[in-house]
Amino acid sequence: MLTSTQNRRVKQWKSLQRKKGRMQTGKFWIEGFHLVEEAINSEWMIDEIIVRADVQLPYEYARFPVTTVNDRVFNALSQTKTPQGIGAVVHMRSSHDVAGRFVLLIDRVQDPGNLGTMIRTADAAGFDAVVLSDDSVDMYNDKVIRATQGALFHLPVVQDDLTPYLKHLKQSGFTVWAAALQNANIYSDVPRSDKIALIVGNEASGIHPDRLEQADAIVKIPIHGKVESLNVSVAAGILMYYAKG
Amino acid sequence: MLTSTQNRRVKQWKSLQRKKGRMQTGKFWIEGFHLVEEAINSEWMIDEIIVRADVQLPYEYARFPVTTVNDRVFNALSQTKTPQGIGAVVHMRSSHDVAGRFVLLIDRVQDPGNLGTMIRTADAAGFDAVVLSDDSVDMYNDKVIRATQGALFHLPVVQDDLTPYLKHLKQSGFTVWAAALQNANIYSDVPRSDKIALIVGNEASGIHPDRLEQADAIVKIPIHGKVESLNVSVAAGILMYYAKG
Repeated sequence: MLTSTQNRRVKQWKSLQRKKGRMQTGKFWIEGFHLVEEAINSEWMIDEIIVRADVQLPYEYARFPVTTVNDRVFNALSQTKTPQGIGAVVHMRSSHDVAGRFVLLIDRVQDPGNLGTMIRTADAAGFDAVVLSDDSVDMYNDKVIRATQGALFHLPVVQDDLTPYLKHLKQSGFTVWAAALQNANIYSDVPRSDKIALIVGNEASGIHPDRLEQADAIVKIPIHGKVESLNVSVAAGILMYYAKG
Repeated sequence: MLTSTQNRRVKQWKSLQRKKGRMQTGKFWIEGFHLVEEAINSEWMIDEIIVRADVQLPYEYARFPVTTVNDRVFNALSQTKTPQGIGAVVHMRSSHDVAGRFVLLIDRVQDPGNLGTMIRTADAAGFDAVVLSDDSVDMYNDKVIRATQGALFHLPVVQDDLTPYLKHLKQSGFTVWAAALQNANIYSDVPRSDKIALIVGNEASGIHPDRLEQADAIVKIPIHGKVESLNVSVAAGILMYYAKG
């Protein structure tokens, strides 16, 4: 059992709390029974499982390398207020197919909760993939992963330059919808098509003009009250469920 | 200019960060130019404005009592990472009319971001009022207020026991929709009516069975992917926009 927060392996796991540590190792940290279960049941590769001494590990987890740690060490690793005492180190995936008929593109979203929630909603709405701009918040940020509720392990999520993906999707016959408030049509007046790529943008500044230009339709959700806009993850949810029909 | 965090008034303002302090004084704290502007342009009563020495106050704010504080004091009052240097103390409102044709009822929601986002969306969707169960997170919590983006000042929001409100709405001819996954109809198959009260529930346990029993229709959003559910504020957004038609 590991009992020191100064232990070399503990320090390595802790380094995964920062983007730099994740990039250097190609691994990330997840925690909680639900997320670990979702990762195990997916095609993602588990590096190891870390469990607090008092936690009973489901016995099928024994096929992975398991390390037991004490309370103090687990608290140092955990990024939640009431840790469940189970975590895992997972290998990043370098490539994913972005295919299918419905793709969500996310341009420069900065709030981890919004990003994770949109990945969760994309899975729920039956979208086939999510492409996230490289200047959005890191998809392996622990708050993002928690907010996905495991959806990160269910559908392809790519973080990269959006431009080539957008070009490729257009060439493959996708209709590109961009969510914006200026010069936009009310979403429910825009006819659906067989293959839709929906772009949503930054919480304050929206979608980059270069990408707005690529859109076949600019769509907005009507604001009947006095607020200026909707939260981006709420807007994305309404538009994804409309797009799927 | 106030320069000590030990000053009696500074301590009083700081006490508004906790529910107890807010209940004892009947006041709450808001910060940032946008929220202060929204409060000033509403029917809510401003108690005083607190401004950091380097901040230029819009001159029409001079009709309110204004106190200038230094950097250190403002940082002690602020609950954001990069304070804008303007805040206000606002009086709570003891009563609000819950009327109109579209009302959102929120049962035991615990996450401040979810609650604030739902109030924001209710305003955007043109709902007329929000009733929030007394065992939900406090509506005057600063994270709630920030997530409303000022919508708290635009439409009536009441925090109280839901039961009498639900009874009153039913007697006034409202159709009650409850969002739940069990024994539910797909929302888009449920006919709209003239007056709709929509209930959404706790992030983990949903709507209390006593209130589910009061519903005329149980509605769900179909889940096409592998996640178990949608985030409550996303679900509320999809349902409110559908209800308004």
